[in-house]
Amino acid sequence: MTEYSRRVNFYETDLMEIVHHSNYLRFLEEARLDWCVKRGVSQWHGRDKKFLLAVVHTEVRHLSPLRFTDQFTVQTQARLKGAKMIFEYLLFVGGNVTTGAKLAAWGKTEHVLVNNLMKPIKIFPELREIMEKESWNETWHLNL
Amino acid sequence: MTEYSRRVNFYETDLMEIVHHSNYLRFLEEARLDWCVKRGVSQWHGRDKKFLLAVVHTEVRHLSPLRFTDQFTVQTQARLKGAKMIFEYLLFVGGNVTTGAKLAAWGKTEHVLVNNLMKPIKIFPELREIMEKESWNETWHLNL
Amino acid sequence: MTEYSRRVNFYETDLMEIVHHSNYLRFLEEARLDWCVKRGVSQWHGRDKKFLLAVVHTEVRHLSPLRFTDQFTVQTQARLKGAKMIFEYLLFVGGNVTTGAKLAAWGKTEHVLVNNLMKPIKIFPELREIMEKESWNETWHLNL
Amino acid sequence: MTEYSRRVNFYETDLMEIVHHSNYLRFLEEARLDWCVKRGVSQWHGRDKKFLLAVVHTEVRHLSPLRFTDQFTVQTQARLKGAKMIFEYLLFVGGNVTTGAKLAAWGKTEHVLVNNLMKPIKIFPELREIMEKESWNETWHLNL
Repeated sequence: MTEYSRRVNFYETDLMEIVHHSNYLRFLEEARLDWCVKRGVSQWHGRDKKFLLAVVHTEVRHLSPLRFTDQFTVQTQARLKGAKMIFEYLLFVGGNVTTGAKLAAWGKTEHVLVNNLMKPIKIFPELREIMEKESWNETWHLNL
Repeated sequence: MTEYSRRVNFYETDLMEIVHHSNYLRFLEEARLDWCVKRGVSQWHGRDKKFLLAVVHTEVRHLSPLRFTDQFTVQTQARLKGAKMIFEYLLFVGGNVTTGAKLAAWGKTEHVLVNNLMKPIKIFPELREIMEKESWNETWHLNL
Repeated sequence: MTEYSRRVNFYETDLMEIVHHSNYLRFLEEARLDWCVKRGVSQWHGRDKKFLLAVVHTEVRHLSPLRFTDQFTVQTQARLKGAKMIFEYLLFVGGNVTTGAKLAAWGKTEHVLVNNLMKPIKIFPELREIMEKESWNETWHLNL
Repeated sequence: MTEYSRRVNFYETDLMEIVHHSNYLRFLEEARLDWCVKRGVSQWHGRDKKFLLAVVHTEVRHLSPLRFTDQFTVQTQARLKGAKMIFEYLLFVGGNVTTGAKLAAWGKTEHVLVNNLMKPIKIFPELREIMEKESWNETWHLNL
């Protein structure tokens, strides 16, 4: 599990004075690529590298809105499921996750590895090795 | 069921040369608000009006990528489920839906009606009356 | 001169209840690529084609805000200046440009033609021929 | 002068494999609001507070493209000009500004202070006091 944190930007809000829901997928992407950096996976990720991550499924549940200047933290966990990489996310707002933060959203994204031409690629050994060390908490979606 | 159609813009692509997945939620929003216009619901929608639609859940399945200049069409259906409005979408790419178009994505979004202060509002009678005339096709997600 | 028109989307607004200023560059891009379609230039535009348009300078003056559901129209004119393509835009809101529309913004963008590797390309003969037929109104920026 | 720094996100790229030019206005906004935080001005900025910043003019010159994962730094300076606040920006990419960074873009934005109803507000004394302490480097645009 990794943690990624930043502040909500002005341009991410809409006329309801909250973060537009489409931006949550961008926050999850930031957290996912941060996971890739922290796990050493990003060395193989990119157009001129070993793989890109094609998104095949996304799901987000919104519990509480985010507002301009809110500090948020995304916890990310990852696992393999056949040829797919599954990421699951808990997005907290306000303060420290271990103390007073509030769960604002839950998300899940499913991906296949592809090359520059969008052709699917198998999970390669170095990635499988990394994934085998990851723990997965089955109960994250039960927070909802 | 309504149909909404437009072309993919340049700025909606990413370095994989396809539409970034977060933009699908924007396409679905365009289709949803087009549904509201066509059903006469948009007269009550807005900050200074009867209600706004808060997003509580989104789900998108991606079958085939969209690319710059692609013409896409979104079919939208809507129903009530308790205090929630549920919208379901089929996104087609390339040509006419009834002839040669290809299913590119399926989506579902769930909403509650709120006022300017983000407080939930009941489904009001005029909206309920409109919703009762809507038909719902249970099999849309079976296309996947 | 070409005209491009559409409605403001919900997700293009910010917490000031107006269109976020960064989106104007997206509206101008839509109008510019519409110009390319109408002039037959888009047949050569794209990653696997003759050229892409790299942006080297942008400028936008805002006179009046755009809001959700506003219908806007962008008038676009283009000319060559050495190796650069210059586009200038007038963005009107509300109703017909020739009758009651209001000037909401003026913009100018400068571009160089590049290939997939971002290397500059000369203005090619077919494009020069098209550009020589374009008229340019020197007084557009005087509207401000 | 303040400095604001972060990494380019995946979703900020386009099919040319570089950051889409509209996102530069978002980077400048992040840098501007960071300036407001560092100068103590953000305490008065917001919908329910003393003022909002309406954008009346933007200008960006692009010297070199930004790419996914690039670290960039924005230097920001501010001054008053009548009732307007003027911000000027230098955007560097790659490494430390004082050592090996490369100038990638220059920008300028002009603003008026407005209230929630978009009505212009005078520069208030606390802001004027802060602005009088700011130094302004006239030569920034000469870097171009």
